[in-house]
Amino acid sequence: MNEFSLSIRVYIEDTDAGGIVYYANYLKFMERARTEFMRELGYGKPALFDGLQFVVRSLSVNYHNPSVLDDQIIVTAKLQKVTRVRFVMSQTITRDGILLADGHVEAACIDVTTKKPTPIPKLMFEKLTSQLG
Amino acid sequence: MNEFSLSIRVYIEDTDAGGIVYYANYLKFMERARTEFMRELGYGKPALFDGLQFVVRSLSVNYHNPSVLDDQIIVTAKLQKVTRVRFVMSQTITRDGILLADGHVEAACIDVTTKKPTPIPKLMFEKLTSQLG
Amino acid sequence: MNEFSLSIRVYIEDTDAGGIVYYANYLKFMERARTEFMRELGYGKPALFDGLQFVVRSLSVNYHNPSVLDDQIIVTAKLQKVTRVRFVMSQTITRDGILLADGHVEAACIDVTTKKPTPIPKLMFEKLTSQLG
Amino acid sequence: MNEFSLSIRVYIEDTDAGGIVYYANYLKFMERARTEFMRELGYGKPALFDGLQFVVRSLSVNYHNPSVLDDQIIVTAKLQKVTRVRFVMSQTITRDGILLADGHVEAACIDVTTKKPTPIPKLMFEKLTSQLG
Repeated sequence: MNEFSLSIRVYIEDTDAGGIVYYANYLKFMERARTEFMRELGYGKPALFDGLQFVVRSLSVNYHNPSVLDDQIIVTAKLQKVTRVRFVMSQTITRDGILLADGHVEAACIDVTTKKPTPIPKLMFEKLTSQLG
Repeated sequence: MNEFSLSIRVYIEDTDAGGIVYYANYLKFMERARTEFMRELGYGKPALFDGLQFVVRSLSVNYHNPSVLDDQIIVTAKLQKVTRVRFVMSQTITRDGILLADGHVEAACIDVTTKKPTPIPKLMFEKLTSQLG
Repeated sequence: MNEFSLSIRVYIEDTDAGGIVYYANYLKFMERARTEFMRELGYGKPALFDGLQFVVRSLSVNYHNPSVLDDQIIVTAKLQKVTRVRFVMSQTITRDGILLADGHVEAACIDVTTKKPTPIPKLMFEKLTSQLG
Repeated sequence: MNEFSLSIRVYIEDTDAGGIVYYANYLKFMERARTEFMRELGYGKPALFDGLQFVVRSLSVNYHNPSVLDDQIIVTAKLQKVTRVRFVMSQTITRDGILLADGHVEAACIDVTTKKPTPIPKLMFEKLTSQLG
């Protein structure tokens, strides 16, 4: 699959008084795409949350064009890098081929109980690395 | 205290493309007031979450006038009824004396582990009933 | 169609520290279903927002069972009543046939410029009344 | 003032099922601080929105430690750079002196009607530059 993409409808809940999608909400859209990407790999909640959890460590986003109510947008997620405890995804949001936003999100694997970084399980690591470009 | 009130600023995050506060966000404002009401009674998170938790069972809200960006609104919380496992609060949201919204919220006390209804602890029950109008 | 239904995935953005869907977010799910219901009738944003807008006037919700991360829920919207300027919808949220929440939402038609109530356009009124149970 | 700071309470609405503040919500906190910073300079909504508007063009955030329900956090905003049409702020979020998150946000001044970049008004520009470190 390499680049995963998810189609999302923009609802009124996503917008702000500027008449456009509230900029922080793009992060929600990006996380939905990452979540569905992991599900495609076989890591829906039950599998994924079996004692471990991914938390966002850093992110950067560039906003190029606004999105408005009722837009049907495409959100992509593509693995850029995988290490023993972290991965980096590059993500884009487009509408009809126009780039609205893009960015990078780095997530770390932690132990749910101790909240300390813990290695990504071997099988998941292999599946993730198989998705690198 | 009887009627507790909390002053809240409306930020862009609270608004929608209609140019007004998104109607579901009034529920967030109402919960902030209930949370601060409980804190005033001595039940901040550490005390409150000592094995139990309050969850909303039902609510009704009437929207009278819109709120807009930058408004300084007043949110009230007043206990209407307290039973062994539940309480009902009536709440209002106003700006400069103009009623924007009002409603009722019923919350039940549950055991954090079993998620089953559990009696409100005796001291909390007494403090809550002392707040009835 | 009469009862419209929309399938929605629960994401981490929808949950709270209680480990369940934050109760105010059910209102977002309900609105998504109302929006798609209107779209089915031919009233997507461009048609709908042609000088008028629907705003929520009142709502009531009962919470029966919690929803959790990763749930695939079904949200329904069914017209209960239509008047010259308002409609009432009854809505439910279920997961695998289990009722999670239900409620009613009353929305009024207003003029976008004056923000005053204005009659629902004749064709829309007819389409809406044709959907009454 | 140079470094502006705002104290914010973490409510249940801000958290997620991981038991911590949902990472996208830090952007809301950061914007509240930027908004109050501008208000301190005399640019509350009526002044600020007099035909122009600031929109976020890019941002980067590093997450160092989690924030939890009931935390009283301090959010800072400090101007790093001001140009004719943009400014960059560096921001931090701390709790009891512990760094939870930090980042940069770049915002551009646009004309509300045309949505095109437009110069920051002279007086505002002077006030902003006076705040540079």
